[in-house]
Amino acid sequence: MARIGALEAGGTKMVLSVGTPEGEVLEREEIPTQGPQDCVDRMVEWFGSHNVDALGIGAFGPTGVNPSSSSYGKILETPKTAWRHFDFLSAFKPLGIPIGYDTDVNVACLGEVTYGSCKGLDTVVYLTVGTGIGAGVMVSGQLLHGMLHPEAGHILLEIQPGDEGNCVCPYHDRCFEGLAAGPSIEHRWGKKGFELADRPEVWDLESTYLAEGISTYVLCYSPQRIVLGGGVMKQTQLFPLVRKKVLENLNGYLVTPELADIDSYIVEAGCKGDQGVLGCIELGRRALEAARA
Amino acid sequence: MARIGALEAGGTKMVLSVGTPEGEVLEREEIPTQGPQDCVDRMVEWFGSHNVDALGIGAFGPTGVNPSSSSYGKILETPKTAWRHFDFLSAFKPLGIPIGYDTDVNVACLGEVTYGSCKGLDTVVYLTVGTGIGAGVMVSGQLLHGMLHPEAGHILLEIQPGDEGNCVCPYHDRCFEGLAAGPSIEHRWGKKGFELADRPEVWDLESTYLAEGISTYVLCYSPQRIVLGGGVMKQTQLFPLVRKKVLENLNGYLVTPELADIDSYIVEAGCKGDQGVLGCIELGRRALEAARA
Ligand SMILES: Nc1ncnc2c1ncn2[C@@H]1O[C@H](COP(=O)(O)OP(=O)(O)O)[C@@H](O)[C@H]1O
Ligand SMILES: Nc1ncnc2c1ncn2[C@@H]1O[C@H](COP(=O)(O)OP(=O)(O)O)[C@@H](O)[C@H]1O
Ligand SMILES: [Zn+2]
Ligand SMILES: [Zn+2]
Repeated sequence: MARIGALEAGGTKMVLSVGTPEGEVLEREEIPTQGPQDCVDRMVEWFGSHNVDALGIGAFGPTGVNPSSSSYGKILETPKTAWRHFDFLSAFKPLGIPIGYDTDVNVACLGEVTYGSCKGLDTVVYLTVGTGIGAGVMVSGQLLHGMLHPEAGHILLEIQPGDEGNCVCPYHDRCFEGLAAGPSIEHRWGKKGFELADRPEVWDLESTYLAEGISTYVLCYSPQRIVLGGGVMKQTQLFPLVRKKVLENLNGYLVTPELADIDSYIVEAGCKGDQGVLGCIELGRRALEAARA
Repeated sequence: MARIGALEAGGTKMVLSVGTPEGEVLEREEIPTQGPQDCVDRMVEWFGSHNVDALGIGAFGPTGVNPSSSSYGKILETPKTAWRHFDFLSAFKPLGIPIGYDTDVNVACLGEVTYGSCKGLDTVVYLTVGTGIGAGVMVSGQLLHGMLHPEAGHILLEIQPGDEGNCVCPYHDRCFEGLAAGPSIEHRWGKKGFELADRPEVWDLESTYLAEGISTYVLCYSPQRIVLGGGVMKQTQLFPLVRKKVLENLNGYLVTPELADIDSYIVEAGCKGDQGVLGCIELGRRALEAARA
């Protein structure tokens, strides 16, 4: 049976795994994300010595994901200067195996569609609300890339009254990520999110921003389901608040069976936190299938 | 050679055409949009007597565009009560020919990709700013449907200072369409758009709203190009203002060759106003091709 390598390349850690084409994880190792010269050789060696037949990589962005572009597989303009313009995909070419490459959030979306909360669907948004806000998007079964890849975490929102000056994004003064990701919560309230669990005003405001962003995604992508993951969503009291406020924002304009069952429409991630790894396995499996076709 | 019928079914008029698979329009007739009982038989007869081998329909929404759904081809919850729940597509089945069915804005997007400003691209947004605001979206060569179809004209924007209370959407108090479509301009300034051509403050405010909506589309869809059409965009002084303000909103966060050439990124429609008809022809041509395959 084929062995599929999976590399979830995040901003803080790299998760290396080997799995079966059915999504069973056989082996796993984590290493901290340092500069590429410190960890890439080690990762290539790891996959080489673990006998994988194909590899799926989900990389932090911005990164080139369009196979016909010269930036394919490269890390682009990132605050992590050591990684800037690093040709990440090419580093794994010596393995001589088929490789699939996409963004971290797109592979998480793929994981949810293949093994998680969105099985059987083809148009889906996976939103992570953690250190940043990022959306992985599948449309008609295809992961959305376009010009670059979606950066839907940076859409502009309306600042809530009294919350002026609290956007922490260095680029924007009222973007979704800057107002609602983990660091903005810490900036606004002076404590980390998990320390604020019993402060209802924190999650009321947080859910207002989440609902505005998600309402925009509902209207723009027309997804069949939206999955919310990431550290901040561990505050599960957010889910009912977000659902209620999304419906208030839409105000009856959209009438669909999906929205009529909002608890099944805006849902928790379904892969026990492993949507990234499982999505990488599926990406590698698809690369192998394509190479054999 | 095949003759392709095209029906652009708009809220105020129906445009019936016959074209070649190469997009040459051979015949055309317009009739006002009345209730279905008043015009549908006549349209079926028209296409029947014009010897078409296939038909492409671009219909006003909301309408079912997902072939696997029971609402496929039906008009949904519309203010036009006579059309509510009308099975539009089925009315044309007696013609016994292959039929393609999509929304008016999606066919316009298809027209622009096939014959207009977006030839050779596969991920594109067509935005109409007219009586309403609607976005037709193609992702990786496929028109976006999902749960229903995008209703990206109703995303929420930030109200500009002094403009409170001017959103004319019956559902939302600060949505893009309610703040920036033709009727909102007329409501705000007391005159129709074409009468306000020499009032710079009108187009300054209009371009601010357009730029916020378009910035959201850039971030969410990551399109390779955005085409702006519809009556309001006849005020072509809007284009440079919108381009400048979109770049200001993004504030250097996205670095791509496309955005570096913003004049080629946010562009006028390229089908001489015929993107809807030409898109219907292409939709019909594809239906014929699929039926013959
Ligand atoms: N239980 C929690 N409640 C609220 N916020 C949390 C919780 N756990 C983590 N976070 C916040 O989520 C962010 C980390 O997100 P996470 O998804 O774990 O990682 P990353 O986005 O870096 O991959 C931090 O800002 C952290 O404060
Ligand atoms: N030259 C113009 N300048 C400004 N606004 C215009 C102009 N022409 C039409 N409009 C406005 O555009 C709207 C009609 O849009 P149009 O795209 O022509 O039709 P529809 O959206 O109904 O298909 C009206 O609100 C009208 O006032
Ligand atoms: Zn931002
Ligand atoms: Zn609205």
